[in-house]
Amino acid sequence: MEFEVIARDTSCGARRGRLKTAHSTVETPVFMPVGTLATVKSVSPEELKELGASIILGNTYHLYLRPGAELVGQLGGLHRFMGWDRSILTDSGGFQVFSLARISKIEEGGVVFQSHIDGSRHMISPEAATEIQMMLGSDISMCFDECNSFPVTRDYARESMERSVRWAARCRQAHTAPLQALFGIIQGSVHVDLRRICLERLMEIGFDGYALGSLSVGEPKEQMLEVMENLLPQMPFSHPRYLMGVGTPEDLVEGVRLGVDMFDCVMPTRNARNGMLFTRRGSIQIKNSRYTRDPEPIERDCTCYTCQKFSKAYLRHLFMARELLGYRLNTIHNLHHYLRLMGEMREAIQQETFLKWRREFYESRAD
Amino acid sequence: MEFEVIARDTSCGARRGRLKTAHSTVETPVFMPVGTLATVKSVSPEELKELGASIILGNTYHLYLRPGAELVGQLGGLHRFMGWDRSILTDSGGFQVFSLARISKIEEGGVVFQSHIDGSRHMISPEAATEIQMMLGSDISMCFDECNSFPVTRDYARESMERSVRWAARCRQAHTAPLQALFGIIQGSVHVDLRRICLERLMEIGFDGYALGSLSVGEPKEQMLEVMENLLPQMPFSHPRYLMGVGTPEDLVEGVRLGVDMFDCVMPTRNARNGMLFTRRGSIQIKNSRYTRDPEPIERDCTCYTCQKFSKAYLRHLFMARELLGYRLNTIHNLHHYLRLMGEMREAIQQETFLKWRREFYESRAD
Repeated sequence: MEFEVIARDTSCGARRGRLKTAHSTVETPVFMPVGTLATVKSVSPEELKELGASIILGNTYHLYLRPGAELVGQLGGLHRFMGWDRSILTDSGGFQVFSLARISKIEEGGVVFQSHIDGSRHMISPEAATEIQMMLGSDISMCFDECNSFPVTRDYARESMERSVRWAARCRQAHTAPLQALFGIIQGSVHVDLRRICLERLMEIGFDGYALGSLSVGEPKEQMLEVMENLLPQMPFSHPRYLMGVGTPEDLVEGVRLGVDMFDCVMPTRNARNGMLFTRRGSIQIKNSRYTRDPEPIERDCTCYTCQKFSKAYLRHLFMARELLGYRLNTIHNLHHYLRLMGEMREAIQQETFLKWRREFYESRAD
Repeated sequence: MEFEVIARDTSCGARRGRLKTAHSTVETPVFMPVGTLATVKSVSPEELKELGASIILGNTYHLYLRPGAELVGQLGGLHRFMGWDRSILTDSGGFQVFSLARISKIEEGGVVFQSHIDGSRHMISPEAATEIQMMLGSDISMCFDECNSFPVTRDYARESMERSVRWAARCRQAHTAPLQALFGIIQGSVHVDLRRICLERLMEIGFDGYALGSLSVGEPKEQMLEVMENLLPQMPFSHPRYLMGVGTPEDLVEGVRLGVDMFDCVMPTRNARNGMLFTRRGSIQIKNSRYTRDPEPIERDCTCYTCQKFSKAYLRHLFMARELLGYRLNTIHNLHHYLRLMGEMREAIQQETFLKWRREFYESRAD
C-alpha cells in the first residue's frame, strides 16, 4: 500500500491524499460505505461504482460467523466472492464482539464470546482476527482491539488500552500478507493522555495507517472533538488517518477539517432503510404524510439515480408498503449524498477553500 | 391499441404477434412481470428493460388501497409514478378481491369487501374498477369480474359467469379512455360449454382482447388444458388472447402451443424471493447446503447479470443472511429465465419449428 498527501489546506488541518492499495487508487479524504456481510445492504457492486465508491468496509465479526472466512478464502477472497474489484478495508471484529455478541471472558489471549445469531461459543484472539482478515483478502486489515463503551473508568480505559497495544503487537507479528496493509487503532476512551501513550506505542510497533477507535460511542460531542483535536496532529503525517465508525455529515466535515483521511459509518445506509434521507438542508423522514402527493424528488439539484427518476410521493409509497426497491432507492440517495460531500471537500482542499466551503455547508443547513 | 398476428407455426396453434399500445410495441407471445404495488418487487425499471420486459402488470386492488388511484392519477398516472415508460396492463381487482380481501357481499352492483391491510370497508363495482384503471392510466385495462375458486358447483359457475358478463357490459359502457384498451375475461370454471357461452356474449359486446380467467386456481392440470384447447381456437384470431395468472414454464409452453399471446404470473418473482431459482433442467433451492461452497453461477450459459457476476455460494449466503441484494439477484435471474423462454418461443414460431423446440425444452428438463 502506498499513501501520499497531495494537497493541504493550510488554514486548517485538512489534507487531500491518494491511497494505492492492491486493488485500486482511493482519493482521500474518503467515506467507506459499510458492506457488513459481503454486500452493502440493498445495492449492487455496479451501483456502488456509479456512486463513486472507491473503497468499502467489510465486518470481520459478521463474515467470520456467516458465511465463514475459510469459505470466502476458498472462493477466492472477499473481492471475488462479492464481485467488488475496488478496495476493501476489514475491521478486526473488535467493535462487534464488544457491541453485538455476549462476552463471556476477556483475557490476555483474546475474547471468548457467544454468537448473536445462534449463541454458539467462539474465541477470537489477535492472531485469529489477523488470520481471518488475511483469508478474506482485504486490502487493509485492522488490529484486533478492545472497543470501549462510554463511560468507562479511567483505570479500566488504561488497562484496556494497554491490552489493546499488546494485542496490536501480536497482530503485527501474525500479519504475513505482503499485499495487505495493517492499521493500528488508538484507544484510551476520552482521555487524551491515554490516547497519546497509545499512539506512541503503536508508532513504535509501526503500522501502515493509524485509526481512532471507540469514538462516537455515546460520549459528548465535545469530548470526541477534544480527542480528535489533540490526537490528529500527532498522528504520522505520511500515513493515512482513519476515524472509525463516524458519523453524521457534520462529523465528516469536522473530521476532515482536523486532518482525517478515512471514515466509515452505517448511518447513510441504515438510516436509508429506516426512511431517513439526507439533504443539503438537513434530513427528512420520507414516511411523513406531507410527502404523500409530493411530485418533487428528494432534492431538485441532486444527480443521483433516485432523484433523477422518482418523486418523494413514490418513495413514500414504497417505504409505507415496505417494498424492496424503496430500501435501495433510499440507500442510493444517502450514499450519493455522503460521497458527493466527500468529493466537494476534496475539491475544496485542493483549492484551499475548505473553511469557506465549511461555512457554506453549515449555512445551507441553517436555512 | 393495434394487434397483428405476424407469423404462425401451422403445426400447432402457436402464433407470433405484435401489439402496439399507447406506450410501446410488445412482441407476443409475451410474459408480463407482475408489478403489484407500482414496482416489480426488488427490481428497478432500468433492470426490467435490460431484461427485455416490454409490458408489466399492475394490480388494481393493491393500487386502489395503496397509494390510491386518485393519487397516482394526480401524479401523472402509473407510468410516470413508477418510472416505467413501456406498456402496463392492469387487472381489474377481481382476482384479489376474491382471494385476498374478506368479502362481505357480492351483489349485482358490485362487491363489498374489507381491506386485507386494515379491515376498512370498500365497494368495487364494474364502473369503479374501470374508473380506477382509467385513473391509473394503464395501456390495457381488464373488465371487473368474479374470479371463481375451484371447485364451485356448476350452478354457481353459471350464475357467476352470467353476472361477470353483465359486469363486462357495464365496464364496456363505463370505459371512455380512448388510448386505453379494454379486455373481456372469459369465466365458467372448468365447464367448456359455460366458457363458450361466456366468450360468445363477450364477443357480442366487443372487446380489444380476450382473456381466460380463473384458471390455475387449483383445478387438475388436464381440466385447465381442456378449457384452453377448446376455447383458444374460438377466441378471435385478430385479437390478443391472454391467459391470466399462469404459470410454470411448462404452462407457458403449452399456452403458446395452443395460441396464447399474453401471460402473467408472480411465480418467477415470488419464488425468487423464496430462494427458488429456475434453470433449463428444472428448479433449484438456493438454500440447499450443497451450494455452500459452489463457485459456479446458477447456470453456466445464462447471460443474466446474476449469472455473469455471482456464484451460487454467494447467492446462498445472501439468502441465508436475508440480504436485500439476494432477493434482487434471484429475481433478475428468474425473470431473465422467463423472458428468454418467451423470446426463444417467438423465434421458434417464426421459424415454424415450435414443436421441435418444445420437444427439446422437455428433454432438457428430463436430464
